[in-house]
Amino acid sequence: MSLDIPDVVIERLPQYLRSLRALKNRNIALVSSADLGIESGVTPAQIRKDLSYFGKFGKQGQGYNVKALADDLTRILGLDQSWPVILAGVGRLGKAILTYPDFTPEGFFIVSAFDSDPVIVGTDVAEITIRPVEQINEYIKENNIRIAILAVPGESASDLIDQLVQSGIRAILNYAPITPKVPDNVQIQNIDPVHSLQTMTFHLSDITLNTNS
Amino acid sequence: MSLDIPDVVIERLPQYLRSLRALKNRNIALVSSADLGIESGVTPAQIRKDLSYFGKFGKQGQGYNVKALADDLTRILGLDQSWPVILAGVGRLGKAILTYPDFTPEGFFIVSAFDSDPVIVGTDVAEITIRPVEQINEYIKENNIRIAILAVPGESASDLIDQLVQSGIRAILNYAPITPKVPDNVQIQNIDPVHSLQTMTFHLSDITLNTNS
Repeated sequence: MSLDIPDVVIERLPQYLRSLRALKNRNIALVSSADLGIESGVTPAQIRKDLSYFGKFGKQGQGYNVKALADDLTRILGLDQSWPVILAGVGRLGKAILTYPDFTPEGFFIVSAFDSDPVIVGTDVAEITIRPVEQINEYIKENNIRIAILAVPGESASDLIDQLVQSGIRAILNYAPITPKVPDNVQIQNIDPVHSLQTMTFHLSDITLNTNS
Repeated sequence: MSLDIPDVVIERLPQYLRSLRALKNRNIALVSSADLGIESGVTPAQIRKDLSYFGKFGKQGQGYNVKALADDLTRILGLDQSWPVILAGVGRLGKAILTYPDFTPEGFFIVSAFDSDPVIVGTDVAEITIRPVEQINEYIKENNIRIAILAVPGESASDLIDQLVQSGIRAILNYAPITPKVPDNVQIQNIDPVHSLQTMTFHLSDITLNTNS
């Protein structure tokens, strides 16, 4: 089924879910695609098209039932269950990730964290005792972990990713400043603030050019 | 000019630039679109199409001059200049951002940082003295800042973004877990690890479904 659904559609679903939850918190029971569009910043036509991949939602002239659609999207996205997650790399960024408050309410539990630095290994961060990275593959296999967060330097990331995938990891949230290649059955999302800044300066430079011309 | 160039094309340019730099570091002077494709994980046809938006690059049968194309992309992306950047929010994440080593080599200099917490204001992080957030608008105007990084909680992000835009900010790297609306002349890139995880669990759930069916 998922083979036919474009990645961009899937990437908009969490946004719709967040908007629906905000509407629910404001005690709104029914919402039109127009109003959901205002809330989520997506055109109503796009919303209707995106949702049509997953079945029939909403009633003509009535709009969507906020709670029902939120529940359906939660299920479609696999968020009706808890996901144990491991972290590789407990430097400054890794520590910020370990104490980030927004993972747990969404069902993502960091259950263990690994580092190669003997000074860091054995210390506690956010009630997790950091393990040596040599134990990461065994841990993944023994605990059936499918999701890893990577906060290691760029030079060590590629080798580590290969190991993680071999051990059974199927989804990687990658903070290392590289764009790694992974097999087709492995999901990867790269978080790269420099890349994000670089796509924006294109527009800023252009503004400057226009101003001078 | 930029109006005709799709965002997805612009978002791939930093990736090409990174690949070209890696090739240059390996002393490779000329590269085919096929080899640049292997390096960057994009199809050769897509690379040629993307680059064609910006002019004529490479010679038939010779490929691209690695250094010349890297220089051109650097200029196109506005990375041939330094960009002063301000940070709003110096909690744990903000501190990790302030000490992140990869901004400066790419020309992004965090020149000041702001927080609303009186305990944090006045302290030094990475040789920057944290200022009270009340001074942020004045600072932006006086120093012609165009880029802001936002690492504040979701509830305070929307109001702050409105202020920043009014003071002259034109590009926002947003770590707050919201999807804010900004005017058309303002760029925004959202870094949202929960959203990234949620798009991946869709595929993991699907795998599970297939296994059970």
